Amino acid sequence: MSRYILQIHCPDQPGLIAGTTQVLAKAGANIVDLTQHTAKDINTFFLRAVFEIEGDGEEEIKKHLETLAPHLQLSWKIYDTSKKERLALFVSKTDHCLYDLLLKHRDGDLPCEFSCIVGNHTDLAAVGGSFGVPFYYVPSNKDKDIPENRFREIIAETNTDTVILARYMQILSAKFTEEFKYRIINIHHGFLPAFKGAKPYHQAWAKGVKIIGATAHFATEDLDQGPIIAQDVQRVPETASIEELVELGKDIEKRTLSSAVKLWLEHRVFVHEGRTFIL
Amino acid sequence: MSRYILQIHCPDQPGLIAGTTQVLAKAGANIVDLTQHTAKDINTFFLRAVFEIEGDGEEEIKKHLETLAPHLQLSWKIYDTSKKERLALFVSKTDHCLYDLLLKHRDGDLPCEFSCIVGNHTDLAAVGGSFGVPFYYVPSNKDKDIPENRFREIIAETNTDTVILARYMQILSAKFTEEFKYRIINIHHGFLPAFKGAKPYHQAWAKGVKIIGATAHFATEDLDQGPIIAQDVQRVPETASIEELVELGKDIEKRTLSSAVKLWLEHRVFVHEGRTFIL
Amino acid sequence: MSRYILQIHCPDQPGLIAGTTQVLAKAGANIVDLTQHTAKDINTFFLRAVFEIEGDGEEEIKKHLETLAPHLQLSWKIYDTSKKERLALFVSKTDHCLYDLLLKHRDGDLPCEFSCIVGNHTDLAAVGGSFGVPFYYVPSNKDKDIPENRFREIIAETNTDTVILARYMQILSAKFTEEFKYRIINIHHGFLPAFKGAKPYHQAWAKGVKIIGATAHFATEDLDQGPIIAQDVQRVPETASIEELVELGKDIEKRTLSSAVKLWLEHRVFVHEGRTFIL
Amino acid sequence: MSRYILQIHCPDQPGLIAGTTQVLAKAGANIVDLTQHTAKDINTFFLRAVFEIEGDGEEEIKKHLETLAPHLQLSWKIYDTSKKERLALFVSKTDHCLYDLLLKHRDGDLPCEFSCIVGNHTDLAAVGGSFGVPFYYVPSNKDKDIPENRFREIIAETNTDTVILARYMQILSAKFTEEFKYRIINIHHGFLPAFKGAKPYHQAWAKGVKIIGATAHFATEDLDQGPIIAQDVQRVPETASIEELVELGKDIEKRTLSSAVKLWLEHRVFVHEGRTFIL
Repeated sequence: MSRYILQIHCPDQPGLIAGTTQVLAKAGANIVDLTQHTAKDINTFFLRAVFEIEGDGEEEIKKHLETLAPHLQLSWKIYDTSKKERLALFVSKTDHCLYDLLLKHRDGDLPCEFSCIVGNHTDLAAVGGSFGVPFYYVPSNKDKDIPENRFREIIAETNTDTVILARYMQILSAKFTEEFKYRIINIHHGFLPAFKGAKPYHQAWAKGVKIIGATAHFATEDLDQGPIIAQDVQRVPETASIEELVELGKDIEKRTLSSAVKLWLEHRVFVHEGRTFIL
Repeated sequence: MSRYILQIHCPDQPGLIAGTTQVLAKAGANIVDLTQHTAKDINTFFLRAVFEIEGDGEEEIKKHLETLAPHLQLSWKIYDTSKKERLALFVSKTDHCLYDLLLKHRDGDLPCEFSCIVGNHTDLAAVGGSFGVPFYYVPSNKDKDIPENRFREIIAETNTDTVILARYMQILSAKFTEEFKYRIINIHHGFLPAFKGAKPYHQAWAKGVKIIGATAHFATEDLDQGPIIAQDVQRVPETASIEELVELGKDIEKRTLSSAVKLWLEHRVFVHEGRTFIL
Repeated sequence: MSRYILQIHCPDQPGLIAGTTQVLAKAGANIVDLTQHTAKDINTFFLRAVFEIEGDGEEEIKKHLETLAPHLQLSWKIYDTSKKERLALFVSKTDHCLYDLLLKHRDGDLPCEFSCIVGNHTDLAAVGGSFGVPFYYVPSNKDKDIPENRFREIIAETNTDTVILARYMQILSAKFTEEFKYRIINIHHGFLPAFKGAKPYHQAWAKGVKIIGATAHFATEDLDQGPIIAQDVQRVPETASIEELVELGKDIEKRTLSSAVKLWLEHRVFVHEGRTFIL
Repeated sequence: MSRYILQIHCPDQPGLIAGTTQVLAKAGANIVDLTQHTAKDINTFFLRAVFEIEGDGEEEIKKHLETLAPHLQLSWKIYDTSKKERLALFVSKTDHCLYDLLLKHRDGDLPCEFSCIVGNHTDLAAVGGSFGVPFYYVPSNKDKDIPENRFREIIAETNTDTVILARYMQILSAKFTEEFKYRIINIHHGFLPAFKGAKPYHQAWAKGVKIIGATAHFATEDLDQGPIIAQDVQRVPETASIEELVELGKDIEKRTLSSAVKLWLEHRVFVHEGRTFIL
């Protein structure tokens, strides 16, 4: 028995759940877990199903869905859970997000493999070593093509599926984010859409906000505007200095990024018209 | 087209979702919303489906489920959403939970009718009047049978489905809670299972807890031990006095009770082996 | 014994606390509660002291502070807690914030008097009646001077100290907000600085934010930009519709506004360089 | 200029703040930060003051306070912030709390030194190595005196001030916790006073609680009953399995323990009649 995850989204219409579950049942699949949501405001149907099946039953399901797809305007994908997603971790000098991901993975809480760590500084090279993940030093350059071409090579060489910007402090080009659309997850150290851009904790302090947050989102051309995957917040002591906001923020950042990565690995993230739906 | 909500829970086994959705599809129902959860720790399957159907298609579905029930050990129920649940609100002197429910209902946020307000004091009689809900004064008595017999009459006369203890400060007898099992919802002004019994805010203060909470649960014989429907918490200022804890607590109590009532009215609450599962 | 609250803020320098407490001690005051904060990022000192004193000792303290003020660049104010602040409540058609304030006041949780309710619709006139607060109907007008002149009269006639915009859905002129600077508190139904302007819940839904919030702030010329007094947030179910966001938002709005009003009445709010410090 | 932190608590009476700040002012101290709280429910005064002073001015202050102490029933202590507290970290096999403390310390967010790591297993010996903290292996024993005598030696040898039980899964004897009263901080993986004892996540799951938490507290004879220093909570997905609760709990545990350690190191923690007051 192998385990798969099916994602479907399409315009809503009667019979979608019954139809889908019948396709799975006919092929001999056992549905382990199913979540369905219809976003009434945009009349769109989302479905995530975890199923188990023997032999090559998965192929039969795929054929059925291919047949149905044009008729129902289905967007669908099936993930084989035995094939672990390979993540590249991009970092600069700050290590709290990096450690949180590495330690959670070692504890068995993140079902993935880390293909590599890529740093534009060498500060965190040793961390890679102690966790057995190869470290690549790719210095930044005014000409973004130079590091980004190297990224393309590394991503190909290491069979990387998704890039996690774990406090990587460089801006990627529109060309690059477009090329790896919805395959790059960033942690923004602010509660988006507030506090876009640099120094969000300074902005938050100057505004006197009473609650700070972090946002994990897909990197897109529009900086800090990509679809939001996860957010978390924390009330701040009124007397906190900017430095203390930064420090508090680290905890929020690391748990928000880890949480987004986990949702991603469990194939719970749908992107539709510029926003996510998490099932 | 009428809209119904189906609740099923049973021991887990392959094919439950496909089987259920086929029963609905065959009868011509359109599934609007479906949530399913398998609690792996106890190998139990839960399903909630909202569906629309024409004419008496509902009857056909009921027949099918009756046939399947013994075989699959199904517990199931179908609710007709056009028949609004009738709630009795039991109160004493405190009105924050009462007002919150009445105002949310008037705003269209709670799909129910209020059959009556029952008070063991007359303080809140006028509130009933201003919202057009009949008020019954049933004074407390050492012999619990006296008020509880009156409750039985009122519940029957007013066609009450569920009793909401909206800060009703009397203990109901085991006989009564057993008779109306899972039909009485209480708000406990503490984070259960901590701070059972009287004066939870005094207890919380004496312990120096940093966070207080409230718990909405079904009333059962074991006071403050019934299955939990909703909980909420709030961080307390370190310098809060007991009086300030009580005041802070009121906000948590009212939003927790309203939230539980809403989950109940949407038929999202399953009770299984002493705990709830909310779908 | 009368009770007073002293607020001081000024550029930081050694000896401020000792100096201040000595002024109070010499006049025979007993300090009941003192909070002090130095915002190191802007080198500014804030102090709030609650003290009790007999006879006209308060006058002696005021004289001392007047003498010190130019030397130390002191901004200071003393509030007599026996004189209750008088609040005008401005409303439109929505009543959740209005009721929350009226009920909390009746429960003794807000130390103020309500001077009047002002509505640009008559929908909530009866609410005023049932709580014994006079209602003034001031319809909106393209020429903002017309209602705002009426506001000036009402504020004067009713001895109003502070205006609370309890979901008052009209924009006040820059002239008016400037005239009543830091005397008008607004509840914005969004987590500022994100989601400024109209329909914040639509904006939040379209962005797919995972957490929504509300912000109580002083009304200023720059709409939705005034100094923030209180904020609160709540995680939203992924499947929430816009309508459900609006409904969830009401709870956050009312508790955030009530909380801001309470901080204000306790004279805990300092405004300095466009942001508040709450002590 | 050296920086000190003064803690005072005593029965409340008029003039305490003015008196205290005068003692500091006369000795030439500059008060940098002062927080004061009077717990009215028990009529007790708490004060924390950060001050700077030149030369041996600190000695003069101590003499004054010694003179005042019997008269005012003062409990007081002065901490020299240039002398860093030395913490011993006790662990078993689980490393999330250990790493969080070590990494926060390396980032400069915890003003202390780690005197040693003590493990009843050798699993985490290498972690000590990579952070330059000596690791002591002290296996458990039915006769608690055997490891605890070794603890006494290690604490003495390494000049340990405070012991942090960073998920140390053994119960210390009453003799030991009494000997090091308020010098041992434990992280309990549950929201105390609920879910005392073993397997709190199993208990929480069985109760169907909607929110889980962690509690950092002083270790005392009564297991899981010591004064609470910090608590945090997190809403749990309704569908979470026990295993997922455990995983979610790790994040809460580590941030709650780190937060308690920080409060402790900043000398913000007062213990009075079985509960803490955090200033």
